[in-house]
Amino acid sequence: MIRAAVVGATGIVGQQFLVALKNHPWIEVRSLAASERSAGQSYRQAITDPSSGALRWFCDEPPVDEAMEMPVVNAADLDVGDLDVVFTAIESDPAKSLEPLYAADVPVISTASAFRYEDDVPILIPGVNASHARLLETQRKRRGWKGFITPIPNCTTCGLAITLKPLHQAFGIDSVIMTSLQAMSGAGRSPGVIGLDILDNVIPFIPGEEDKVEKETQKLLGQVSADSILPAAFKVSCTCTRVAVLEGHTEAVFASTQQPCDVDSAVKVMREFTGGDDIAGLPSAPQHMILVNDDPFRPQPRLDRDNDGGMATTVGRVRQESVLENGIKYVLVSHNTKMGAARGAVLVAEMLMRDGYIA
Amino acid sequence: MIRAAVVGATGIVGQQFLVALKNHPWIEVRSLAASERSAGQSYRQAITDPSSGALRWFCDEPPVDEAMEMPVVNAADLDVGDLDVVFTAIESDPAKSLEPLYAADVPVISTASAFRYEDDVPILIPGVNASHARLLETQRKRRGWKGFITPIPNCTTCGLAITLKPLHQAFGIDSVIMTSLQAMSGAGRSPGVIGLDILDNVIPFIPGEEDKVEKETQKLLGQVSADSILPAAFKVSCTCTRVAVLEGHTEAVFASTQQPCDVDSAVKVMREFTGGDDIAGLPSAPQHMILVNDDPFRPQPRLDRDNDGGMATTVGRVRQESVLENGIKYVLVSHNTKMGAARGAVLVAEMLMRDGYIA
Amino acid sequence: MIRAAVVGATGIVGQQFLVALKNHPWIEVRSLAASERSAGQSYRQAITDPSSGALRWFCDEPPVDEAMEMPVVNAADLDVGDLDVVFTAIESDPAKSLEPLYAADVPVISTASAFRYEDDVPILIPGVNASHARLLETQRKRRGWKGFITPIPNCTTCGLAITLKPLHQAFGIDSVIMTSLQAMSGAGRSPGVIGLDILDNVIPFIPGEEDKVEKETQKLLGQVSADSILPAAFKVSCTCTRVAVLEGHTEAVFASTQQPCDVDSAVKVMREFTGGDDIAGLPSAPQHMILVNDDPFRPQPRLDRDNDGGMATTVGRVRQESVLENGIKYVLVSHNTKMGAARGAVLVAEMLMRDGYIA
Amino acid sequence: MIRAAVVGATGIVGQQFLVALKNHPWIEVRSLAASERSAGQSYRQAITDPSSGALRWFCDEPPVDEAMEMPVVNAADLDVGDLDVVFTAIESDPAKSLEPLYAADVPVISTASAFRYEDDVPILIPGVNASHARLLETQRKRRGWKGFITPIPNCTTCGLAITLKPLHQAFGIDSVIMTSLQAMSGAGRSPGVIGLDILDNVIPFIPGEEDKVEKETQKLLGQVSADSILPAAFKVSCTCTRVAVLEGHTEAVFASTQQPCDVDSAVKVMREFTGGDDIAGLPSAPQHMILVNDDPFRPQPRLDRDNDGGMATTVGRVRQESVLENGIKYVLVSHNTKMGAARGAVLVAEMLMRDGYIA
Repeated sequence: MIRAAVVGATGIVGQQFLVALKNHPWIEVRSLAASERSAGQSYRQAITDPSSGALRWFCDEPPVDEAMEMPVVNAADLDVGDLDVVFTAIESDPAKSLEPLYAADVPVISTASAFRYEDDVPILIPGVNASHARLLETQRKRRGWKGFITPIPNCTTCGLAITLKPLHQAFGIDSVIMTSLQAMSGAGRSPGVIGLDILDNVIPFIPGEEDKVEKETQKLLGQVSADSILPAAFKVSCTCTRVAVLEGHTEAVFASTQQPCDVDSAVKVMREFTGGDDIAGLPSAPQHMILVNDDPFRPQPRLDRDNDGGMATTVGRVRQESVLENGIKYVLVSHNTKMGAARGAVLVAEMLMRDGYIA
Repeated sequence: MIRAAVVGATGIVGQQFLVALKNHPWIEVRSLAASERSAGQSYRQAITDPSSGALRWFCDEPPVDEAMEMPVVNAADLDVGDLDVVFTAIESDPAKSLEPLYAADVPVISTASAFRYEDDVPILIPGVNASHARLLETQRKRRGWKGFITPIPNCTTCGLAITLKPLHQAFGIDSVIMTSLQAMSGAGRSPGVIGLDILDNVIPFIPGEEDKVEKETQKLLGQVSADSILPAAFKVSCTCTRVAVLEGHTEAVFASTQQPCDVDSAVKVMREFTGGDDIAGLPSAPQHMILVNDDPFRPQPRLDRDNDGGMATTVGRVRQESVLENGIKYVLVSHNTKMGAARGAVLVAEMLMRDGYIA
Repeated sequence: MIRAAVVGATGIVGQQFLVALKNHPWIEVRSLAASERSAGQSYRQAITDPSSGALRWFCDEPPVDEAMEMPVVNAADLDVGDLDVVFTAIESDPAKSLEPLYAADVPVISTASAFRYEDDVPILIPGVNASHARLLETQRKRRGWKGFITPIPNCTTCGLAITLKPLHQAFGIDSVIMTSLQAMSGAGRSPGVIGLDILDNVIPFIPGEEDKVEKETQKLLGQVSADSILPAAFKVSCTCTRVAVLEGHTEAVFASTQQPCDVDSAVKVMREFTGGDDIAGLPSAPQHMILVNDDPFRPQPRLDRDNDGGMATTVGRVRQESVLENGIKYVLVSHNTKMGAARGAVLVAEMLMRDGYIA
Repeated sequence: MIRAAVVGATGIVGQQFLVALKNHPWIEVRSLAASERSAGQSYRQAITDPSSGALRWFCDEPPVDEAMEMPVVNAADLDVGDLDVVFTAIESDPAKSLEPLYAADVPVISTASAFRYEDDVPILIPGVNASHARLLETQRKRRGWKGFITPIPNCTTCGLAITLKPLHQAFGIDSVIMTSLQAMSGAGRSPGVIGLDILDNVIPFIPGEEDKVEKETQKLLGQVSADSILPAAFKVSCTCTRVAVLEGHTEAVFASTQQPCDVDSAVKVMREFTGGDDIAGLPSAPQHMILVNDDPFRPQPRLDRDNDGGMATTVGRVRQESVLENGIKYVLVSHNTKMGAARGAVLVAEMLMRDGYIA
């Protein structure tokens, strides 16, 4: 069994890691880390509200019993000596200092954006760009680390990159315009989205989000070389909005392809896109990378976010598009806190274990 | 005073006409019509739920006292002999037979889509395309009517056409991609959007809506000639979705212009777009056709839908756009049941009164 | 295997029956019935929207494949000759004529209120009042039926009666005041609760609901005799409201007991209330009739409605109460469309099978 | 003109004070105070988000221009020398130290709970208990202050006390059971209620709320003597919950009266309860203290919270009640941030000005 730590274990993404790793066949959680405030407490104490005695557990799944009596250590003091991998569920600022600390000795799978845009750091989605993992060797050597850092993409990038991949393979993507309708869970809980702001409303701006999606999509579908990734040449332009949805990002995509691509062909390559050998046999892999639903009223976030355990991206409303050359448009739903966060990071770990990067 | 009838007076749009016309300085409501079921009752009886005795009044504004004791006549039997204008708030199917019946004798301002796409029928937004009204003469002659039919656009078209107009004048629109996040009120109440379907959800399809927006935007910004309108040559491509918002459509627009157009110039022409002589002095005219808000978190439907009494379109997040040539992107909010429905239709009537089409 | 029909199979409760009976170890669905409109179609055709081709399936669980190619018959023509039980998921009005038709030959488990208040008709909740089933023999004889009709209670009664039962056994209930905050799913979809009415709102009236809860609670906790049920002598007074929740009724209960009852004792008897032999071994029985949560912020409908597969009632905030004599107050959450509807009816069938009433 | 300060001016309640006092005929805002963080800035700067440049203005009404360029001072350093009254919109903890500081020199009208339960401090609702104001003289003398502190009640108490008052006068209240369905705005914005917690949900606990409502209702309807208030002798028992509503608390009330009270009589005394001389002529007074709506589906928070500018309490569903002796039950809606907060406090100031306590 691979021995793992979860850093940022008391927050919502950290809790999702505990759920994703419960009874995992290959990985066992050996350490929990959080901020100094929680250090020295049991996990149960650390997530108990002192005034009411209530458990601050934020997942739909029940609290993970196995974690409850584990000690929580200060993330800055985490001893990675007997660990094989560290999962981080922390903000970008602390990630900048903590992740290199861990990576000096051990692989780090990160949900933070701190290192996503560095030359020698691949952003991985198993099934989409497994080949980019080879850059981890370069990263190790260049930085003199025994481990490495590999982040997963921003949750809004995830479904977009997955659905563009088979179109890019078959027809070549020329450009992408996308408007997102994002769930509140993507903003976390500190305080995240305030109820007074979102009920009967739309918030048309998510700071930093559009830049992330544009850069990450190009990098994810880019070409890996010995020491860096050449971003895909297509342009991406987004407007990212927040809506009153709990989980599941909806995205309205307008894409232009280099080769002509009709609706049937687009649907066909999406349906045939299985992720192949990249994800075959991985415990957290979805049965389908992409589910295409013919019902014109689908996908809907509440009905489709949990498809294949929240690991499939659901597509619908595939139509010809008149403005862009060889234009195709569709709507997708992707589970932002499953495939787009902790479970997606666990899937990366599984792929890296199988391929020998984590051992 | 101009004497008006409201047809479909018991429905939500009909009620909004009563509110928009309450204490109107130029127009008085003389007749109320509805389906056969309500005919012969007082308006109060017609909107009273027989089992509970409760008034089925759907506007935020209080019920219009002046209407309460008026008789409701069968729309098929409406006597237009002593009327100067008829406002219709009915579905497209009954509009197809009823509106020509009225138009034989009297001008009809319609919220239905039944005649929007006919050659001799202008779709009017005062301030945007007042000149198209001249087509009404052609329509009268061609059809042998004393009156005419002039529909307002679909509520989703309205804010889009208003914001494109100054860009089109100054830079020439080349193409438009738009994703809408539409309010529930656009679907009415029979049953409209069911609470079980929309809470914690997005519905990614509104039957017929995208076609309407694409065709109507081209027609609204087209060139009028003696006997028809040459649609604007630019292409429009939409994805229309429904979100859990009561009122106010939000639209994420990506536009390409023929002449280069930077952000400052786009904002400038939008701010300077007053509607000019078209709307000057009309009682229902907004103070601003377009309000541009610099706050990056605006516009929001709950905060901006009621700007200028629901008659202004609010724009924000104006940014350069990389995918389209000379690309500009922005977000707008438009009140779908005020400027986009009854109050917008009343504004059309006011313009046509001033210009001598209604007397 | 017991052979069952589901009547009203195309509606939301009918679909929940199909889900509740999928892979059932004791019961197999042999016939589907609905209104004349659906008769003669396959189930798939009957729930397919003809204009869009979309499947009108309303449960969170996936559509039940086994049902898709089954024929749908007209409920008025259902041949019960080769059936052992009929589940009805229809409105009260058609139930009045259809249920006796079936009951002449075969047991009927009903979610409708049509027969709930008749002297020889028990309202059954396994674990609460199994002994009332003996009245079914009286009903058979009196009405000359081979079968019988036994309804489940109104969904709002269900959680109230379950939580009052152990208090009544241990301390004697003297009176009950209850305010409900009910989910939208309780109103169904035709049209049920309109989104425009419930967003950012509370609807303080549900026609008929308060009377049902008051009468049914007394009957459920009453004493059965040879030919009728003597309602429990305590009084019940309710205010029933609708809130913007998808599933799960929340109820704030204030109860007065005959014997003094402190908080610890109330919690203890609720926790020890297992339903006993009544439900032991029944496939759909919850693991706990009542779960008491010490977290003062629980129960919450979204977090607690699915406890024990939607079959447990969750209680919290148990406190002493000063207004009523021996007053105790608490909050409960009960899943109105699982324990409170189809799955609750299947549990009744299981109990009646075990006890020989259905064979 | 009376010269006023608003302390806590940058928060949501502080902003509501600025709206309530805009163009006030008797009061002008001369000073704005907030925490040390905002001190030294203009009000505009203090409510501008530094990263986005957006105005953090939280009211539906537009930002108050008159305040924008006023300086914000540190609440601890507020110079009350040239002021006639101080309105405080701060949390209970800072209120404990700041309010006595101001009250040494000048009257303080407070929205905080810090002093509500002290013997010589009246909680005032004009129209309900104006006579309690005489205690302010006692307070002044006993504490050696030139000013005084008078808090308004908790927002949930407000509508309850107003509706009980005419029943208490006419029939004598014997006991009250109440379940509230409270709006999110009552929890403020720091962070208040998180969207992830409340969408598709109910939160059944609001810390401290039930105790406040129980104690304050008794005090408000109590008898004032020379040096204290004898609380009303009736008992009050509450369950307070939070629902997904923006503004407007809904309360389901069950009351027992000493003298028999039928529905017609209860409605009559509520309708006749005008607040009388207490509120006659005050600029912020509602036209009706209580509006009784016969529509069984009313009151609803979205439709009724703004009645009489948010200053009227709306009642509906008045029914006989069987559990309590002489029982009557009803539902009320009260605007928690208008009558229940800033505008209610301004109404108190107006009454105290008219009666000579503020000059």
